[in-house]
Amino acid sequence: MARKNAFYAQSGGVTAVINASACGVIEAARAHAQIGKVYAGQNGIIGALREELIDTSKESKRAIAALKHTPSGAFGSCRYKLKSIDENRAEYERLIEVFKAHNIGYFFYNGGGDSADTCLKVSQLSEHLGYPVQAIHIPKTVDNDLPLTDNCPGFGSVAKYIAISTREAALDVASMCETSTKVFILEAMGRHAGWIAAAGGLAAREEGDAPHIILFPEIAFDRERFMKKVDRTVKKHGYCVIVASEGAQYKDGTFLADAGTRDAFGHAQLGGVAPTLANMIKGELGYKYHWAVADYLQRAARHIASATDVQQAYAVGAAAVQMAVTGKSAVMPAIVRGKGKRYTWKIEDVPLARVANVEKKMPRNFITRDGFNITPAARDYLAPLIQGEDYPPYKGGLPEYVQLKNVLVPKKLKSSFKI
Amino acid sequence: MARKNAFYAQSGGVTAVINASACGVIEAARAHAQIGKVYAGQNGIIGALREELIDTSKESKRAIAALKHTPSGAFGSCRYKLKSIDENRAEYERLIEVFKAHNIGYFFYNGGGDSADTCLKVSQLSEHLGYPVQAIHIPKTVDNDLPLTDNCPGFGSVAKYIAISTREAALDVASMCETSTKVFILEAMGRHAGWIAAAGGLAAREEGDAPHIILFPEIAFDRERFMKKVDRTVKKHGYCVIVASEGAQYKDGTFLADAGTRDAFGHAQLGGVAPTLANMIKGELGYKYHWAVADYLQRAARHIASATDVQQAYAVGAAAVQMAVTGKSAVMPAIVRGKGKRYTWKIEDVPLARVANVEKKMPRNFITRDGFNITPAARDYLAPLIQGEDYPPYKGGLPEYVQLKNVLVPKKLKSSFKI
Repeated sequence: MARKNAFYAQSGGVTAVINASACGVIEAARAHAQIGKVYAGQNGIIGALREELIDTSKESKRAIAALKHTPSGAFGSCRYKLKSIDENRAEYERLIEVFKAHNIGYFFYNGGGDSADTCLKVSQLSEHLGYPVQAIHIPKTVDNDLPLTDNCPGFGSVAKYIAISTREAALDVASMCETSTKVFILEAMGRHAGWIAAAGGLAAREEGDAPHIILFPEIAFDRERFMKKVDRTVKKHGYCVIVASEGAQYKDGTFLADAGTRDAFGHAQLGGVAPTLANMIKGELGYKYHWAVADYLQRAARHIASATDVQQAYAVGAAAVQMAVTGKSAVMPAIVRGKGKRYTWKIEDVPLARVANVEKKMPRNFITRDGFNITPAARDYLAPLIQGEDYPPYKGGLPEYVQLKNVLVPKKLKSSFKI
Repeated sequence: MARKNAFYAQSGGVTAVINASACGVIEAARAHAQIGKVYAGQNGIIGALREELIDTSKESKRAIAALKHTPSGAFGSCRYKLKSIDENRAEYERLIEVFKAHNIGYFFYNGGGDSADTCLKVSQLSEHLGYPVQAIHIPKTVDNDLPLTDNCPGFGSVAKYIAISTREAALDVASMCETSTKVFILEAMGRHAGWIAAAGGLAAREEGDAPHIILFPEIAFDRERFMKKVDRTVKKHGYCVIVASEGAQYKDGTFLADAGTRDAFGHAQLGGVAPTLANMIKGELGYKYHWAVADYLQRAARHIASATDVQQAYAVGAAAVQMAVTGKSAVMPAIVRGKGKRYTWKIEDVPLARVANVEKKMPRNFITRDGFNITPAARDYLAPLIQGEDYPPYKGGLPEYVQLKNVLVPKKLKSSFKI
């Protein structure tokens, strides 16, 4: 097989471990003679379109290894969905043009459902245009909503963060509730699927432990039932801890966070399902509340990443290279859970055609009948994903995260491309 | 000296390390023959008033040791300020009555400025009422606003949390800013003093690093200058990270969080300086934003506590006992920083009369001239306080925090007391 360069890009919201996947790709590629250099897209796929390619061969072995413990996207990521081929064929042609100019034969795209779709199209179109590129999609999403893979790298760490934060904050509220805060709400990410909020449920050790209520996008919000549950919980335990998915919604699909009132100027109220719920509870039940919105803190929290997640993120990156050098294309390395009682996992390739644009929601049997908590089945699924601590190195009391040099490859094309 | 029991209570907002102080008190007391049992107030001082005393001698050595790595208040805390003696002398008399009934000769009160004041009054009044109690105040507050002590136990850990979270979230924003979020705001605790927000500044390694803006309660908020700085930062770096103290305020003392608009029903807008700033920026500059409000997560985050803070919290607890058995009263163990370049500290007693009701704010020379960041002097002060990681033990991917049995001592008094 002729020696070709590889292109790697990070796509969509970054995670605590997407750089571990990058590390897996680059370390594996460096070990394979048939892969030349790995070029990373500056700011994701936009870097390919603009011919802004980062030459990762300029980075030391040590810097690349440090990616494994560095959160965020080391090369920059982007929210940029390529249009359909019919709508903007020029984009795909431009990609192939750039790949051709830089002798790129491998395309590794590290992202969620949208990028799986792009990856599939690149593989198809490149073939069609007579410059075949092996396109491999590397799964990444905190939302855990990709199909065919047992879980998504990035999710385990955010799950661990939310579970720990819930346990910690719940202890705080429990110790103050006699005279102070009675209701605490933690807002978790997950616009369409409740996986992250569900992880908050792991904080409970036994029946009655916090969190007492979890709100999932999968379960229509019923204000009356919710208020009753909050009130009953405060009366029974002295306090109530709620983990609410940002995607919590009414039956008609309106997000709670969007259903808020408007301010004096008619602007929609400053978002957040947590403050919205807090206001509702205050108004109706009068309980003193506190709320937290972890936002980016949760997906960037490499300081408390799940060791399992870090290993899997690295493994899917390395496996993608393995798949590429054995001639595969239009596939994704998926995590497959072993059947035994003890948690085991391995990696297998699955066809991208079956991955793209499918969203995996929480199954109903992972949610208790009353819709407010997780079942033992959910615990069995979630618990292994947060196992193990993988602490970054520290200097001066702070994690030492690597900053790469990110040296650009000289451009070869005369044309520029307008995004 | 006759053998007397000790009373210990936690007061006000809890921290990641207040239980480490409890551990210091109990372990030291167990080693001193002249101290009998340590009774802890259930829900703080309220437990003394209600004669709800927890018998800590019922807890195993192992459980008490585990307090050192357990956040929140293990015996319950409360927000309950005793009135002045003139206003409610009955409260003080009740305390002495309960102490007398349970042969309590030592009063350890673990809290902030208010509880230092209460502690002082108890020592004075007990003398007056012919049942002298040695009252020692143990410093605790995430706000770091007590005088005479170089820093307050509880602060180092929240400072570490905010510094790490700022560094992590800033990396996230930096990697996405080309096509997505341009401004990120993290709201930190600290209603009256900017210490916690200041700690966010430690995330920066060099000039120009995030956070680009810190908002302190000590510096009057100037909307126009703020907007200019945000805009300039985004134009220069591509993104802007802001750490805002919840106490950020206008020149007239109005909190930003309270100055928000009202909703359609005339309710004050759901609090939070972070969403308020975000809305302001969106309206004026149009930048896409994200914001986080860490709330209790920051002060409960024992998973990433500062080792220095844990040591100091334990040490002030143990020192309080040492002071008591050597006959001291109406004092507080204060942390004294050594003069050398290398950070050292020791503990000395300071008179409570000089501690009570004094609030230590950020000195002006800790804040840059433009009011938007910290100076090297602030760094020198703050950096040692977040040194070292003191990880709790984990089980199943989650920290193993202890839950005490909290067995109550049988009541001896016939009268009850209405809070």
